Amino acid sequence: MIILKLGGSIITEKDAKIPTINDKNLARISKEIKSALNHLDHTNDYNNGLIIVHGAGSFGHPFASEYQIGKPFKIEEDFEKKKIGFSLTQSWVKKLNTVICDALREEGIPVVSIQPSSFVITKNKRIISANLDIIEKYLENGFIPVIYGDVVLDREETIKMAVVSGDQLINYLAKHLKPERVILGTDVDGVFNKNPKKHPDAKIITEVTSLDDLESMDSTTNIDVTGGMIGKIKELIELAEIGIESEIINAEKESFVEKALCGEIVLGTTIKM
Amino acid sequence: MIILKLGGSIITEKDAKIPTINDKNLARISKEIKSALNHLDHTNDYNNGLIIVHGAGSFGHPFASEYQIGKPFKIEEDFEKKKIGFSLTQSWVKKLNTVICDALREEGIPVVSIQPSSFVITKNKRIISANLDIIEKYLENGFIPVIYGDVVLDREETIKMAVVSGDQLINYLAKHLKPERVILGTDVDGVFNKNPKKHPDAKIITEVTSLDDLESMDSTTNIDVTGGMIGKIKELIELAEIGIESEIINAEKESFVEKALCGEIVLGTTIKM
Repeated sequence: MIILKLGGSIITEKDAKIPTINDKNLARISKEIKSALNHLDHTNDYNNGLIIVHGAGSFGHPFASEYQIGKPFKIEEDFEKKKIGFSLTQSWVKKLNTVICDALREEGIPVVSIQPSSFVITKNKRIISANLDIIEKYLENGFIPVIYGDVVLDREETIKMAVVSGDQLINYLAKHLKPERVILGTDVDGVFNKNPKKHPDAKIITEVTSLDDLESMDSTTNIDVTGGMIGKIKELIELAEIGIESEIINAEKESFVEKALCGEIVLGTTIKM
Repeated sequence: MIILKLGGSIITEKDAKIPTINDKNLARISKEIKSALNHLDHTNDYNNGLIIVHGAGSFGHPFASEYQIGKPFKIEEDFEKKKIGFSLTQSWVKKLNTVICDALREEGIPVVSIQPSSFVITKNKRIISANLDIIEKYLENGFIPVIYGDVVLDREETIKMAVVSGDQLINYLAKHLKPERVILGTDVDGVFNKNPKKHPDAKIITEVTSLDDLESMDSTTNIDVTGGMIGKIKELIELAEIGIESEIINAEKESFVEKALCGEIVLGTTIKM
């Protein structure tokens, strides 16, 4: 089984002020996934299965940020506002998921939408309860589950609600479902030793085996500015520790997603022990 | 706690050839629900909670019917087509749910969408597995869960997938969450002894206490032609047997939903033992 992440920066215009799909990327990547599934001889076989996880991009971040989902609050009035913010964020990320599922299905892929807020609960922003039986059952039947970054209830009373990122979902899904491979389609070529926008001599790090590999870098690298590359790698290093390798690739580059799904080596960063 | 059903024939144009919202009903009923919540002093209190269940109407039936979801099939090729049909139906009912949640939230109601296909499994078209902890948790926090008729996986190998109607969801939710009241908003005044469209002397049956009350009626009554009134009543009689009363009211009549939520008696049919 393969878990494929489509980053919010790939499928949406991440810096747009209102939720905006990146139609061109979505159409191209949908075709690439279909083509890879044909190649992989995807059948009703759990081991040949594929799970797609997508981020929220401009459909989630502006709302989660405006309503400070996951931040502590003190008074009941704030909670009432936050609940409306939760509802609004949930609605927009669901709309994004619908657009993505529709694009994939139009290519003939039997996708099934999976809504985290219907079955996931966190404590201090980490998933503590999520029954994955149904996802396994969809895989056994040859469906392609499409799950996404969402807002969920949190058991910590000071925050009561949290954002579950696509990256945390990948970590949780991979730990429990043990995929053979994890592929993260992002808008960068991988992890660099320096910020490639500032330093023409920046080099891609093709293999990360511990967080130490990153700590030696200066703080102006792309690690922070691309929004949570460190967080992403932390999730992936936990997987490497239990023997699950992952690759960060640039999904904006034509055919990279397709090739990576088919097992071809493309430029990128591998996280492994 | 109250469970309120909004029938697919109320919130959608049920006979439309393409999925069509009944905007007028949806806007009016959203306001009525908001007004009733103010009256009921809805707070973060489980016992004062409200769950909204809605049907699929023209967003679900045409697709479920075209792809014969829930009907047995023989060959693998049929299953491949059915999977696309499942995906398509799931997408459309999700779109309806999004529109309804948005309309309710625009009135200031902190709704949370709950997607059955993410956590419900049936066997022979009846729910056998659905963890409701998360719905209880949303209620405890003062959210209004909005759940809906959907397609789900079925453990019976000859059908593999099924439609879970809003009415079956009401039955399951009520059995497990023990609401004080169950209100079904439909497009008819209640259950009649004869088809009121054919017989000017048809009378509403204000109280149903067993299926026998219905079997004495002739087959041309509205019981069948309104699409599953018999099925609806069967679900509700099971609830009456365990002490949960329900009311079928006409949600097309202005203020009926609001009044019923506030505990006022309106014209309709009560199902009780």
